[in-house]
Amino acid sequence: MDNIGIHTARDAGHHAANPGLQGVVAATTRLSSVDGEAGELIIAGYPVGEFAPRARFEETLHLLWYGALPNSAQLKALGDALAERRELPAITLTVLRDAAGARIPPMDLLRMAAGTLSGGEDQEAALTLVAQLPAVVAASWRLLRGEEPIPPRRDLAHAANYLWMLDGTEPDARRTRALETYLNTVVDHGLNASTFTARVIASTGSDMVSAILGAIGALKGPLHGGAPGPALDMVFEIGTPDRIEPVLRSKLESGERLMGFGHRIYRVRDPRAEVLGREADRLFAGAENRSLYLLAKEVELAAVRLLAEYKPGRNLQTNVEFYTALLLHGLDLPVQLFTPTFTLGRVGGWCAHCFEQRTVKRIIRPESSYRGPIDRVWSPLEGR
Amino acid sequence: MDNIGIHTARDAGHHAANPGLQGVVAATTRLSSVDGEAGELIIAGYPVGEFAPRARFEETLHLLWYGALPNSAQLKALGDALAERRELPAITLTVLRDAAGARIPPMDLLRMAAGTLSGGEDQEAALTLVAQLPAVVAASWRLLRGEEPIPPRRDLAHAANYLWMLDGTEPDARRTRALETYLNTVVDHGLNASTFTARVIASTGSDMVSAILGAIGALKGPLHGGAPGPALDMVFEIGTPDRIEPVLRSKLESGERLMGFGHRIYRVRDPRAEVLGREADRLFAGAENRSLYLLAKEVELAAVRLLAEYKPGRNLQTNVEFYTALLLHGLDLPVQLFTPTFTLGRVGGWCAHCFEQRTVKRIIRPESSYRGPIDRVWSPLEGR
Repeated sequence: MDNIGIHTARDAGHHAANPGLQGVVAATTRLSSVDGEAGELIIAGYPVGEFAPRARFEETLHLLWYGALPNSAQLKALGDALAERRELPAITLTVLRDAAGARIPPMDLLRMAAGTLSGGEDQEAALTLVAQLPAVVAASWRLLRGEEPIPPRRDLAHAANYLWMLDGTEPDARRTRALETYLNTVVDHGLNASTFTARVIASTGSDMVSAILGAIGALKGPLHGGAPGPALDMVFEIGTPDRIEPVLRSKLESGERLMGFGHRIYRVRDPRAEVLGREADRLFAGAENRSLYLLAKEVELAAVRLLAEYKPGRNLQTNVEFYTALLLHGLDLPVQLFTPTFTLGRVGGWCAHCFEQRTVKRIIRPESSYRGPIDRVWSPLEGR
Repeated sequence: MDNIGIHTARDAGHHAANPGLQGVVAATTRLSSVDGEAGELIIAGYPVGEFAPRARFEETLHLLWYGALPNSAQLKALGDALAERRELPAITLTVLRDAAGARIPPMDLLRMAAGTLSGGEDQEAALTLVAQLPAVVAASWRLLRGEEPIPPRRDLAHAANYLWMLDGTEPDARRTRALETYLNTVVDHGLNASTFTARVIASTGSDMVSAILGAIGALKGPLHGGAPGPALDMVFEIGTPDRIEPVLRSKLESGERLMGFGHRIYRVRDPRAEVLGREADRLFAGAENRSLYLLAKEVELAAVRLLAEYKPGRNLQTNVEFYTALLLHGLDLPVQLFTPTFTLGRVGGWCAHCFEQRTVKRIIRPESSYRGPIDRVWSPLEGR
């Protein structure tokens, strides 16, 4: 045991600890490149704005898993492979029913149920996970609300089938396009904590289901998976255009953070916000009630202007959460499903990173530095 | 989303990739120190040989979780807290029955079932996981063999109750001691891949069950969890003392690796092998048939001597797998339960590392370096 995964603390004692691993390059990848200064995100060679609004999600999977967009035959093969794996095993539904009865939140339900999916070799496991996670999320949500799950349909594409399973309404092209653009936009983003978790687990030679489960566990963390809900809450709180400036000023003056603005990496506008913003524009163009969208656009403009006034030099721009919230809300998804739906996009990237990690053939295993006593002597229980 | 867990590939482009993170110190810890040159393992201040053969496993947990050995009242409180959490939830048994029916191997069963355990805050989750994982392993094994699970007993200590649940025989003090020494010896070992996985997941602010599930997934990997079985297989294959030298020489001459010898880190004898060897000596001292043990001791001596002859200067010594295999075999555990039983020890360390990681308040998130095209242009499906 631990036959390879071991290392010495004392050997490492002369290195300074880097508890966040900031600046440490743990992988080379052909999957995505994040350039925070330039505001650029490249997915397998394509700037995010180039492919995300156009690709079916199945095309994106092919791009990440096999390095190129598929031709028609390849697209059909991958689409069929996913469609025929959508049905959940009975035990997965049993676990979901039980956990939903205990009012366990959707991301925990997702992690619990995903653990019961069967794995097999990598290719099979990746197809099964990508195909079945939407059914898990949709069934969880319905069971939590006391409704029966809606079985998947094989004749719908991946994204359309997810929307179908949520409410039994066949989505029109505009709604399907909006969801596909979202899933494509968030499919991969460098070596974030969940993707890194998947790679560490895969590096031990463990199976893909284990790696993806670990990634889901990491994504659940509030420091990672984030909360796109609050960005929308602020728009709801503002409510009407006349309240935009007073509410924002009041928040900024009391030192409150404006949710949906600013990003740890991007110094200019998050390129994903750009793509999702344009998609939201298309989605809401056909909506009967465009007022929320128009209000959100006004809030965005005012927030960026006021942030420049209150926090000069910081260049705080709209981030991906703002338009994620708007777009998913426009698709009638409840806030509780925002992070689970994020998972349905990102799982494609996690699987791609596992495939890539398999070619490295090296366990990921940093070192620790021991800070503690070294010569304690046993004292019997009676003397303590 | 990814609101914090993001980083730039290009910023990192000037660093060389370190795909194993070798030599990178990702944490300072008060939990354990591994010194490969000196052959020394310190657990929370105690050399492994000082505490492992003496402590109850509950004492070891107290040492790692709270920094000191417990007094009588503390020991009783921790023991009671574990004992009253041993009973598995009905859904966990349902998942185990279903998966055992599908002949899913024990480590996968463990990961699936562990995912259904309920979490709650860290302290509660740690107690639940440590208390219930032995019941999961024991129930899995019995169900795989077509036997009904044996309910846990509150009146037995942690290690004794595990042996009880395996076969319904109350273990004597010698067998209980042997298992406790084993669990103590493997409870922590620096920042190995599974422990690191737990810390990465905990660093996102995710829950402890998610972190431990990720760690179990990593431990499943053949490059990490290892396989103590083969070390014993070699002893069985040799069979009688007269065959020791010819079989070993034949293996060495054909370039075969001797399982149970040599370690990536330890340049002298693995201190854990020392502790487990002495414990095996005590365990087999009372055994009716000591012949396997005596044969194994002779195999060890001959193997170390012949390794020095065939691979001079390498100083290949008996590693922890050799005596793990012997000790667990002496406890009548089947080879398939060796890695799951290892998990029952290591989970104490994983939880301790999660507690420790909570104090860091920083997400673990290294960087990746992009190697791929950057300016691909969309081509419609028809043109591909």
